[in-house]
Amino acid sequence: MRRIAVFTSGGDAPGMNAAVRAVVRTAAWNKLHVYGIERGYEGMIDGHFKRMERRDVANIIQRGGTVLRTARSMRFMTPEGRAMAADHLKAYDIDACIAIGGNGTFTGAKVFSEEYDIPFIGVPGTIDNDLYGTDYTIGFDTAVNTAIEAVDKIRDTADSHNRLFFVEVMGRHSGYIALHTAIGSGASSVLIPEAETNIEDLKTVLRKNKARGKLFSVIVVAEGHHLGGAAGVSALIKDELASMEPKVTVIGHLQRGGAPTALDRVLASRLGHHAVNRLLEGEENVAIGIVNDNIFTCPFEESITKQKQPREALIRMASILAI
Amino acid sequence: MRRIAVFTSGGDAPGMNAAVRAVVRTAAWNKLHVYGIERGYEGMIDGHFKRMERRDVANIIQRGGTVLRTARSMRFMTPEGRAMAADHLKAYDIDACIAIGGNGTFTGAKVFSEEYDIPFIGVPGTIDNDLYGTDYTIGFDTAVNTAIEAVDKIRDTADSHNRLFFVEVMGRHSGYIALHTAIGSGASSVLIPEAETNIEDLKTVLRKNKARGKLFSVIVVAEGHHLGGAAGVSALIKDELASMEPKVTVIGHLQRGGAPTALDRVLASRLGHHAVNRLLEGEENVAIGIVNDNIFTCPFEESITKQKQPREALIRMASILAI
Amino acid sequence: MRRIAVFTSGGDAPGMNAAVRAVVRTAAWNKLHVYGIERGYEGMIDGHFKRMERRDVANIIQRGGTVLRTARSMRFMTPEGRAMAADHLKAYDIDACIAIGGNGTFTGAKVFSEEYDIPFIGVPGTIDNDLYGTDYTIGFDTAVNTAIEAVDKIRDTADSHNRLFFVEVMGRHSGYIALHTAIGSGASSVLIPEAETNIEDLKTVLRKNKARGKLFSVIVVAEGHHLGGAAGVSALIKDELASMEPKVTVIGHLQRGGAPTALDRVLASRLGHHAVNRLLEGEENVAIGIVNDNIFTCPFEESITKQKQPREALIRMASILAI
Amino acid sequence: MRRIAVFTSGGDAPGMNAAVRAVVRTAAWNKLHVYGIERGYEGMIDGHFKRMERRDVANIIQRGGTVLRTARSMRFMTPEGRAMAADHLKAYDIDACIAIGGNGTFTGAKVFSEEYDIPFIGVPGTIDNDLYGTDYTIGFDTAVNTAIEAVDKIRDTADSHNRLFFVEVMGRHSGYIALHTAIGSGASSVLIPEAETNIEDLKTVLRKNKARGKLFSVIVVAEGHHLGGAAGVSALIKDELASMEPKVTVIGHLQRGGAPTALDRVLASRLGHHAVNRLLEGEENVAIGIVNDNIFTCPFEESITKQKQPREALIRMASILAI
Repeated sequence: MRRIAVFTSGGDAPGMNAAVRAVVRTAAWNKLHVYGIERGYEGMIDGHFKRMERRDVANIIQRGGTVLRTARSMRFMTPEGRAMAADHLKAYDIDACIAIGGNGTFTGAKVFSEEYDIPFIGVPGTIDNDLYGTDYTIGFDTAVNTAIEAVDKIRDTADSHNRLFFVEVMGRHSGYIALHTAIGSGASSVLIPEAETNIEDLKTVLRKNKARGKLFSVIVVAEGHHLGGAAGVSALIKDELASMEPKVTVIGHLQRGGAPTALDRVLASRLGHHAVNRLLEGEENVAIGIVNDNIFTCPFEESITKQKQPREALIRMASILAI
Repeated sequence: MRRIAVFTSGGDAPGMNAAVRAVVRTAAWNKLHVYGIERGYEGMIDGHFKRMERRDVANIIQRGGTVLRTARSMRFMTPEGRAMAADHLKAYDIDACIAIGGNGTFTGAKVFSEEYDIPFIGVPGTIDNDLYGTDYTIGFDTAVNTAIEAVDKIRDTADSHNRLFFVEVMGRHSGYIALHTAIGSGASSVLIPEAETNIEDLKTVLRKNKARGKLFSVIVVAEGHHLGGAAGVSALIKDELASMEPKVTVIGHLQRGGAPTALDRVLASRLGHHAVNRLLEGEENVAIGIVNDNIFTCPFEESITKQKQPREALIRMASILAI
Repeated sequence: MRRIAVFTSGGDAPGMNAAVRAVVRTAAWNKLHVYGIERGYEGMIDGHFKRMERRDVANIIQRGGTVLRTARSMRFMTPEGRAMAADHLKAYDIDACIAIGGNGTFTGAKVFSEEYDIPFIGVPGTIDNDLYGTDYTIGFDTAVNTAIEAVDKIRDTADSHNRLFFVEVMGRHSGYIALHTAIGSGASSVLIPEAETNIEDLKTVLRKNKARGKLFSVIVVAEGHHLGGAAGVSALIKDELASMEPKVTVIGHLQRGGAPTALDRVLASRLGHHAVNRLLEGEENVAIGIVNDNIFTCPFEESITKQKQPREALIRMASILAI
Repeated sequence: MRRIAVFTSGGDAPGMNAAVRAVVRTAAWNKLHVYGIERGYEGMIDGHFKRMERRDVANIIQRGGTVLRTARSMRFMTPEGRAMAADHLKAYDIDACIAIGGNGTFTGAKVFSEEYDIPFIGVPGTIDNDLYGTDYTIGFDTAVNTAIEAVDKIRDTADSHNRLFFVEVMGRHSGYIALHTAIGSGASSVLIPEAETNIEDLKTVLRKNKARGKLFSVIVVAEGHHLGGAAGVSALIKDELASMEPKVTVIGHLQRGGAPTALDRVLASRLGHHAVNRLLEGEENVAIGIVNDNIFTCPFEESITKQKQPREALIRMASILAI
């Protein structure tokens, strides 16, 4: 193995730069040449490759976003697109690729590596933490910290006005961010896609809280909640709780950005580092992860299809601690 | 003068606690007794008064929100409500009041002090910075910093994806937060209630930016913009700029919270401190402010009716620096 | 079991309040009465107990420090001191204690519970992360994030001036904070108590970096490093590297404070919650921890005497990624 | 005027990048060519010039430090050094220079512009805020916010342990940072170079605080305080206050770094913008500033020699509010 390529794909996540840095430096340490591909599969199709050396990744570990940029690629879903991508990889004499992204990225990698003989290793980078095969994905810890900081601020105003707030956090199919945000911010309730929500139970909780002297409440709702996110849930109960003047806040895209946390920087560094090590040891077409603090790999097939869900015990604890 | 009361009213703003602390401690220094009234005029009507001594305001300078809580009071707009409030002030033998809030708060103070012989001093606390008679209101600097931090994070993702973002910040009638956020975050454009927006001009700017190689853009929109906030503006241009995948983010209530900035803590301390000093010197029914770094007072009448607007020069500069 | 006591002891750590909250609320859920003891063993000796109910721990999850205050107690090391403490526990009819702290706290708990028949459960709260029996201690993640934020800022100035900085972080006997700070901040080198430092190797690294065009360097040094912390190491090499104008910064006590991170809040919530559960299940005189994301308990004896050390693999990785 | 140069010199300060950006973009708007000089007068002597266009200053407004790097130049204090600098300016056909820095930077500019016929405009960039001719210097607000955030964290631990902390902030000759940090963090006392410190008075204050039930205290000390900074002051009183276990923390170089605050970004944008405007209007050899929110210029001579000091009224207020 002499030359590898690295790229980021799908939604950006804080810590992706730390992963890119780790790939480039570990590769350099092992005398490999590294090419960075811009905008994921789009750049692979269009031939946007650039040589990356050690100094090119200096001073990026603390930056949000991704210096390689990212995109979702429709063209890569077509045989023609993949053929163009393969041509460029061959033209640059790339022996293997490291793909940093989520489910869609790994799906692309799996399909491509079955058609062309170029091994891939996937590095889990997505704020949603919903990838099987790793306890944490890159960006999740930062997103949760950002959401908690936002809720801490909203609580100042909720507390000052005795108000009820519905705060929507990211997570289209997954409640990880919502659950951790709710536990960490001491929210009154949390509504996630993975658990049925009984709206009558929620009303009961809120009425009880009020009776107990809890003057304000924050309810954390995952974006993908079946009742329509924070706005949907709020609409269902606002009549009965009008005296608490319910407000809706959608934290939004700022959860994707910001300097990565310590955990995300260390995690991304380890994953990027070991992705290169595993390639050199001959592994291929697997996603790397950390399970129980050990490096773990699983075939793309499994990573893509298996489900990972928040623990029941955490969901139960959240409700006990909420009051 | 022996006893004064202090309260916060209207929307909460970071730094209100620093103002309360300064009032209590300056009063104590001058051997005055201080009562805190909870939830503004509501608490005045309901008789929620509590004695506050020096140690009661320890360790609050850094906290967002207001320890006295706040509210908007419909009842205080009625003669009956004000009569009840006056009764309580007399029962507690209050010689004067310090009211921390915005336009509505000062209006209430003016009406009340014309009816009852209890002097008021107003302290400008509102994130919007739209009060005449002071260069800065308490909470404005914190709100702008919070908005800028949010835009910094959104920019990470905008940059990574080459996207166009419309970011809505607070300001129902005032563009101060939007203008300072736009300058401070290096936004491409800013749309505020005080200036006409030509949607064709905006499209032209965005097209030019793209032609010049500016791959992403952030447009800051004030909540009260006549085209309907960020969502309204985005809807008007999204067809033509679909390739930039325009996104809308409403930063929302988190702008009201958080630990106050240095400027807000120092400003609030000065305003609270001098509000007591001016009361002792016999001033009444004025709002205190800081103009050109000097303490300034103006009659409630003026403070309520006169307009303060962002400088033309700053608006022009914003567009020159945007590129 | 009807009544339990909870206290914090030793050095304070961010997240202790989240643990206290979780203890109080889980106990309330289980119909137990909870007493908070102020200032750890000192308050136990002096009888500073207070009843804590659910609402008493509202709005503290986000606060640094500990609302129960903390202390190191010399008196508790004497039989007389412990006898007084036992008298108070009996007077308050306390059936069991939950002690939040580090090695010294657990040692006190072990000795006491051997002398008196009152079961203890220890909750690991110390920023140093050097307790056996848990992957993370409460406060570690926050301390590392604080240290990394500080290094991020120092790097701005190091980079602007092409300078060499020695940054000292906390850790008298343990290099966890230093190692994670170094990896997370992309430092050039890290010097920890657990590994021998060859000063000639360090000089070589710095010279090589310079030759390679790395214009500034940050070296992270653990407080307890055998060469005398950052000042000691700097003194040893400053002559040879004078052109880089080496500077020393000791981050200091601010590493102990601040709002806890998401990880510390969730961790502390889980540990406090399960400490109560385990007490109810009859466990005693153990420290609770989280190992491989599962709740784990180990006898105080083991927790106190066994060593936990940073992984060799992480230390090696840090040097590979440093350039 | 067709070509101008811009550089940063002396100590770095957050917001310098915003000033560079404003200079480049305002110049471009006016069809001027801009050259950036690296490392201040050092780069001028060595000929390190680079053409800067609008896009070259994209995405830097939020970054600490200075992308042009900075240095203190001994060589520029010699006629030979300045001659070399003049040669390079002429070779690049530079018509005028904009110098961003502090007292030393302006002194260099004054001497140089008297010897060579190249006009300079100075932009005040220094965290110390000690320059005459402007209410605020670029970087001051960020430095104070950083110091206050640090004290907020230290207070968590001071409060938890009932301890006395001496916190040293930057300011070799100036107490601005210390004074604003003390007011903003609610410190018990502040010791600055501009005011005599009576150590007996300080002891009295601390004893009184203790008697009043104030269980912990934070004393802010300016680096340049005549008793030897925080360590010096602490040494003088520690015997008498041993029970409060006095601790010393030096916040250090991290005060120089970090993302600039809103105020610093807007201030730097305005100063950079108007520096170009004033050059075009024919002004030269002046420092630009903002006084009472208006653009103000004063000759280098005055800016260098006149003193600016914190207001007496603020110092007095600080002691009244401390309790």
